Amino acid sequence: MSRVVRFNRIGGPEVLQIEAIDVPAPKAGEVQIRIKAIGLNRAEVMYRSGEYTYAPQFPAQLGYEGSGVIEAVGSGVQDFAVGDAVSVVPAFSFIEYGMYGEVVNAPVHAVVKNPAGLSFEEAAATWMMYATAWGALIEFGGLKQGEAVLVGAASSSVGLAAIQIANMVGATPIALTRSEKKRDALLKAGAKHVIAGGGAALTQQVLELTDGRGAQIAFDPVGGPEVAHQLRALARQGMFFQYGALDTRDLSVPVMDLLGRHLSVRGYELFEVTTDTARLERAKRFITEGLASGALKPAIDRTFAFEQIADAHRYMEAGEQVGKIVVTV
Amino acid sequence: MSRVVRFNRIGGPEVLQIEAIDVPAPKAGEVQIRIKAIGLNRAEVMYRSGEYTYAPQFPAQLGYEGSGVIEAVGSGVQDFAVGDAVSVVPAFSFIEYGMYGEVVNAPVHAVVKNPAGLSFEEAAATWMMYATAWGALIEFGGLKQGEAVLVGAASSSVGLAAIQIANMVGATPIALTRSEKKRDALLKAGAKHVIAGGGAALTQQVLELTDGRGAQIAFDPVGGPEVAHQLRALARQGMFFQYGALDTRDLSVPVMDLLGRHLSVRGYELFEVTTDTARLERAKRFITEGLASGALKPAIDRTFAFEQIADAHRYMEAGEQVGKIVVTV
Repeated sequence: MSRVVRFNRIGGPEVLQIEAIDVPAPKAGEVQIRIKAIGLNRAEVMYRSGEYTYAPQFPAQLGYEGSGVIEAVGSGVQDFAVGDAVSVVPAFSFIEYGMYGEVVNAPVHAVVKNPAGLSFEEAAATWMMYATAWGALIEFGGLKQGEAVLVGAASSSVGLAAIQIANMVGATPIALTRSEKKRDALLKAGAKHVIAGGGAALTQQVLELTDGRGAQIAFDPVGGPEVAHQLRALARQGMFFQYGALDTRDLSVPVMDLLGRHLSVRGYELFEVTTDTARLERAKRFITEGLASGALKPAIDRTFAFEQIADAHRYMEAGEQVGKIVVTV
Repeated sequence: MSRVVRFNRIGGPEVLQIEAIDVPAPKAGEVQIRIKAIGLNRAEVMYRSGEYTYAPQFPAQLGYEGSGVIEAVGSGVQDFAVGDAVSVVPAFSFIEYGMYGEVVNAPVHAVVKNPAGLSFEEAAATWMMYATAWGALIEFGGLKQGEAVLVGAASSSVGLAAIQIANMVGATPIALTRSEKKRDALLKAGAKHVIAGGGAALTQQVLELTDGRGAQIAFDPVGGPEVAHQLRALARQGMFFQYGALDTRDLSVPVMDLLGRHLSVRGYELFEVTTDTARLERAKRFITEGLASGALKPAIDRTFAFEQIADAHRYMEAGEQVGKIVVTV
């Protein structure tokens, strides 16, 4: 028997229930993991609320990220053995797998061995944040030393990961945040500059901070009409990566900026990295090197006990965190 | 003395005047061309009206495209000789050069020898339309056999070029046009399908015509809020190229489509091709092959005499043409 988190209807955090179930033996190409820590993601809140890109099938499981110890391996699995400390990279749908549990199965293509020196909590907080930021900034954006990058919702775990990755390659991370409240925390987290609030003042500040050149990349999970102010602050051939939909309204794209500086606006998802073997390998190498050198260090805001899973979701929805919310099992 | 078209104030077609001037000898890296035909472009109408990306300096010259015979070469020019039949590719600003004249100078990087069998009128109508469409569809868009491409403002010269290029690579050109008026002309010009009018019906029709897959590329000089309906009709990893600003309002980009199918929206200009030597060479090769095989054939709507330059601009602004407007000298 394993205790797992499930829900049987769409709703608030209170729909999450801990149930004891029989977890089947891992099938071919799967491993079974005794989970030690779970990394929470906004996608899970959206899935629970019925706002994700696909609808739950009840009883619904969830959870993209977890870290723990392999307890059994399915047939044909060669790269992992019982006792390995591993983590799960989001590369599946919640219809297939969910990491919110004491013991869970996971597909081998989504499993990575934990880099040395990383705690289970840190490992559970690693892959979503770094692989998401790496894909946009490095793989598709080609961010280079000396270039500036605008990091939207900068205090989110992915935002903090983007700040660290920008610093790792010698670029200049400019953190965007809604209010002055998180300014100090963001500077401490590595942001070179912090811009609080949006509007035309955002454009103006970015241009001042970059000597009029503008930023090469913007990396934003918010979207909506405010996007126009970031686009006006991008350099020639600048790239805007939209990786979430916190604002569900249409993005506003000023055409003369788009045309005159050959900007691009791109929808981007982590799955573009995690479902492509070669890309995922490049991501793993970059992230493992960064963790080893200390350039990357997962920022954990707070941990909750497994039994407090609903409180952990409430805390995420309140939006006061700076970094990753982790649940320990 | 050479008669050239100039204007001394921003305004309607009536500001265009024919003046006799002394054209200086070609400088190093320039050739002097006796122009036989001029291809008109919307950029010239915008420049004359003060709506282009930079303001005129008076007395202002203009003209991106012309074809004729080399009359003199500047020092260091090796690839061209007096008597060569050549055309000019848009790769300069009107502050520097303008092709609206009997005798003009042009920089060698913008000059190409005319492919065999092409009249001066056709040659003057070739480079802007084909190089613009080639850059988006082939160079940046990677359009492949079997894929569908939405061609906005399809009856423009660039739109018709895109239709021909799509057919040349075995893709499916779907022409977008404002009304039913040009449907037959577009089908005759090679469009596989024609969609007249916009809105949600456009999305619906594209999805029906592509068995639900959507189009891989949209290529549009219009823009504005209507863009949303084209984006909803794009396939996974679909690319939207905005290459003009006929609608100066912000583009509306629906976030769930952008994210869910990893779409990109890109501002694109011909200068990305013509100011990059390697790209321009690839464009020339593709276009020369297409002209030689007959897959590409410049569509000329109507010709005007040099003295009728103002009427030619009026005709372009009326928007009734299907194809290129050419002025003969």
